Amino acid sequence: MSAEKKTGRERGEEWWQTGIIEMYPGVIRLRGYEIQDLIGRISFPAMIWLMLRGDLPSEEQAVLLGIALGAAVDHGPQAPSIAIARMAATCGVGINNAMASAINVLGDVHGGAGEQALSFYGDIAEALDRGLTLGGAVSERLDRFFAEEKDYVPGLGHRFHPIDPRAPRLIELTRDFAARGVVSGRFADIAEAIEAEMAKRKGKTIPLNIDGATAVIYGELGFPPALTRGLFVLSRSVGILAHAWEQLQESDRNKGPLPREWLWAYTGTPARPFPGDSE
Amino acid sequence: MSAEKKTGRERGEEWWQTGIIEMYPGVIRLRGYEIQDLIGRISFPAMIWLMLRGDLPSEEQAVLLGIALGAAVDHGPQAPSIAIARMAATCGVGINNAMASAINVLGDVHGGAGEQALSFYGDIAEALDRGLTLGGAVSERLDRFFAEEKDYVPGLGHRFHPIDPRAPRLIELTRDFAARGVVSGRFADIAEAIEAEMAKRKGKTIPLNIDGATAVIYGELGFPPALTRGLFVLSRSVGILAHAWEQLQESDRNKGPLPREWLWAYTGTPARPFPGDSE
Amino acid sequence: MSAEKKTGRERGEEWWQTGIIEMYPGVIRLRGYEIQDLIGRISFPAMIWLMLRGDLPSEEQAVLLGIALGAAVDHGPQAPSIAIARMAATCGVGINNAMASAINVLGDVHGGAGEQALSFYGDIAEALDRGLTLGGAVSERLDRFFAEEKDYVPGLGHRFHPIDPRAPRLIELTRDFAARGVVSGRFADIAEAIEAEMAKRKGKTIPLNIDGATAVIYGELGFPPALTRGLFVLSRSVGILAHAWEQLQESDRNKGPLPREWLWAYTGTPARPFPGDSE
Amino acid sequence: MSAEKKTGRERGEEWWQTGIIEMYPGVIRLRGYEIQDLIGRISFPAMIWLMLRGDLPSEEQAVLLGIALGAAVDHGPQAPSIAIARMAATCGVGINNAMASAINVLGDVHGGAGEQALSFYGDIAEALDRGLTLGGAVSERLDRFFAEEKDYVPGLGHRFHPIDPRAPRLIELTRDFAARGVVSGRFADIAEAIEAEMAKRKGKTIPLNIDGATAVIYGELGFPPALTRGLFVLSRSVGILAHAWEQLQESDRNKGPLPREWLWAYTGTPARPFPGDSE
Repeated sequence: MSAEKKTGRERGEEWWQTGIIEMYPGVIRLRGYEIQDLIGRISFPAMIWLMLRGDLPSEEQAVLLGIALGAAVDHGPQAPSIAIARMAATCGVGINNAMASAINVLGDVHGGAGEQALSFYGDIAEALDRGLTLGGAVSERLDRFFAEEKDYVPGLGHRFHPIDPRAPRLIELTRDFAARGVVSGRFADIAEAIEAEMAKRKGKTIPLNIDGATAVIYGELGFPPALTRGLFVLSRSVGILAHAWEQLQESDRNKGPLPREWLWAYTGTPARPFPGDSE
Repeated sequence: MSAEKKTGRERGEEWWQTGIIEMYPGVIRLRGYEIQDLIGRISFPAMIWLMLRGDLPSEEQAVLLGIALGAAVDHGPQAPSIAIARMAATCGVGINNAMASAINVLGDVHGGAGEQALSFYGDIAEALDRGLTLGGAVSERLDRFFAEEKDYVPGLGHRFHPIDPRAPRLIELTRDFAARGVVSGRFADIAEAIEAEMAKRKGKTIPLNIDGATAVIYGELGFPPALTRGLFVLSRSVGILAHAWEQLQESDRNKGPLPREWLWAYTGTPARPFPGDSE
Repeated sequence: MSAEKKTGRERGEEWWQTGIIEMYPGVIRLRGYEIQDLIGRISFPAMIWLMLRGDLPSEEQAVLLGIALGAAVDHGPQAPSIAIARMAATCGVGINNAMASAINVLGDVHGGAGEQALSFYGDIAEALDRGLTLGGAVSERLDRFFAEEKDYVPGLGHRFHPIDPRAPRLIELTRDFAARGVVSGRFADIAEAIEAEMAKRKGKTIPLNIDGATAVIYGELGFPPALTRGLFVLSRSVGILAHAWEQLQESDRNKGPLPREWLWAYTGTPARPFPGDSE
Repeated sequence: MSAEKKTGRERGEEWWQTGIIEMYPGVIRLRGYEIQDLIGRISFPAMIWLMLRGDLPSEEQAVLLGIALGAAVDHGPQAPSIAIARMAATCGVGINNAMASAINVLGDVHGGAGEQALSFYGDIAEALDRGLTLGGAVSERLDRFFAEEKDYVPGLGHRFHPIDPRAPRLIELTRDFAARGVVSGRFADIAEAIEAEMAKRKGKTIPLNIDGATAVIYGELGFPPALTRGLFVLSRSVGILAHAWEQLQESDRNKGPLPREWLWAYTGTPARPFPGDSE
């Protein structure tokens, strides 16, 4: 129907379009399925998959997705997201507001490492598709990295943990799922090849971190890099909620970053009179 | 140790306290469990339970929690939360920012109905504990409601759906889990007794809605009312992410609520000259 | 026109209504004034007043509003709002996102004291209108406060400052403006009478704080209590922006509340084996 | 003092550093000035300037800053920021939360045009410093733009307004301030030269818009491009607050983008049975 022939209401309804949910009085369909057919028959991770990708995962795929989501729920109150959730909870706002202030900081630096890692893996996967060997593809990508991008190789190393206990466990599980044919294992291969090549170049192992390991799983399951940040938000929201909730049980008000009796260091212009006033 | 004897660092570390997560280099424990012992052995809803409540649920309890979380993921772009996620996604912010702006509006009106319903059920459960019959307890609470609170009975009725297809399915499943001894069924009884008493008083059925039905499950599982809002945030975050993600695939920029060529109605002071200017 | 006769487009345009802004191609009117007539002729505080209240203030009223807005811009990084702005700025989000996470915590506890103070003053003003003396009205309100509300008298006392240097200066300026007939001075009288009565009751002065003092000015200027929180947001946004901006010049990444090498105290369940695993 | 010699408290206090605010009990200094010396002596825009830049502006500079801040306060409810503020206000959250959800979307697309325009002007200013003529510098920059960047020339053109009534007025005022020696007029020259060169290339005038015009003023006043987004947030916050406040006077609950009785268009997979169920 041409735009001119549409009524205003049709035009308005068309302005908001979605392929995710269809609704009529008494009817809710998600991705084509009646909601009452889904409830009680698919797990919560399967519902997440369906909503994001449009089709149902196998039961095993949903289990693996749930594993990655469960692994990154918390990293303690030194993480800005968790600290912000706790501070916000002392300021007289709703628990959803405390969560929002926290989720809002899962940006490029705090929440983007998984996305960067999966993009990096994807570049190597593409080189494999072009016929390169795994070693060749990894070397090529690392050469480009050190020539052009520098900083940290995404997915490797941790400021705090010599070995992040989550990463080897996640890779072990990915291997199990690959052995059962649920996934191919290709991204696990890539991540381990990066780790090995880096160890060769640096003379010491810089082990895979949680972002690198969850990126392996999300890649194995076919999620695009940009969506891994959204998945990380769903995962970390659990820790954010737990900490906001714990803090709400306390009586703190306007909790600052440092103990109440401490101040900050002032590094600015020394005290001075207002222009024209005599000292 | 007395506060005076503590070093500054001890005092600082004590300022941030939590019973949720313990960490050392190479060690992450959630609620006392090594994270690598949890990964791959508990489902994502079980992880949510552990984080929020401190102990592991049974497998069946985790399944029921996952059912409630999965049921409320989306109600379409006429819900302010979903619309905001989509609009934000066209404004040049990160996907986590779009999610935060949306989650932030799940306040008393948009996100609080489950909490209100579970508090209402809880008052009736307390009256049962005091020895009242179910009918008596429900009548007493509704009498107080109509005398003092008015407006809508929490958990009943829907602006759009004559019968919300999610609610009867969730109650049916709760009954199944009660039959298997996972939960007691007490909150399902209470919700249905409210519905029945209201039908008697009003002469027509005002059926249980999604908030009333998920509140039944959260109550059966022992969650306090205030935490149901947090659980709703986790649930609705899935729909918020799905819609933000779908919108990000489009080329819209600064998407407004109405079609681009429409304006709003102006209802204010008519055009007037600046004071002192002649017309 | 009846709703039935409206076209869909008319209905859509009516769904979004406002008395604040009127727009056509080439035309923008705020509260009835052509925007080009306002630009360059009214100050920024006068624009804030016009937008919020619908009419232009006198020049003197706008100056007094600007004084209150300028006084509360910052209270340093121990305030959760300022700390959050700085932490967010290290997480890889936009400066507007850092500001939003911070503004979001200016809730009942962190941002609501001015509103509570002005409501308190308003109750006393009402009693004056009923014919009570200032002393009588203040006593009556304080009696009710200590009988029913307790906690802190809104607008008085400060955790950190024995005397908040901003408050006496703001009251002095309010008196100047009252002497020139810009405002009545009634709310300054009320605040000082509360301070005096409290000193009599407690045996020591609990001096007016910044929230109490800005509430005096907002009350003198005729703003309703609920709007003082919005004005505080506009004011504190300046400090939030300044701190976010200063932090963005630094190279910190994922800045936590405590120095990087410190942890938090863990207060939860001691390390335990996963159920069924042998220790 | 070396880091090793510091006490924990010193280390903690040093972790939070700022050159903006210095505080002791009874003392608050902003950028070196006692706050009570500033209150009542500098305007609100002058306070904004001091906080962001560290030194006091002249009175005229502060007036010009206030003009730019006042000009962009609102563009009506079709702007996502304003619509979100109004929708949020119907969801049962605080006015600061409604403002935060809205400010949060002033990202690269919705809030970044001024920054892009000022960067563009800055490139041309640099070329002038290298000795190019104004015409040559503009041509060079536009050539690069059309070769590499494309899309829209920042600061020019408007989807809705043939001529944005704010822009010519702001340029006229900038010329006035330049004539009085407050600013140099260099950025006004650059903006007008871009407009002229584009008219020559396109055969029709694409007039300066509000982002281009405020960028001229911020540039004249010496603000760096990245800070113009923060200034825009301060400006637009006024409209956001006004609309949230107006909406809060209404009784709407969970206001969606379209009239309540309308739905959205569903464009996804048609209704289908759950796998394994017979239709």
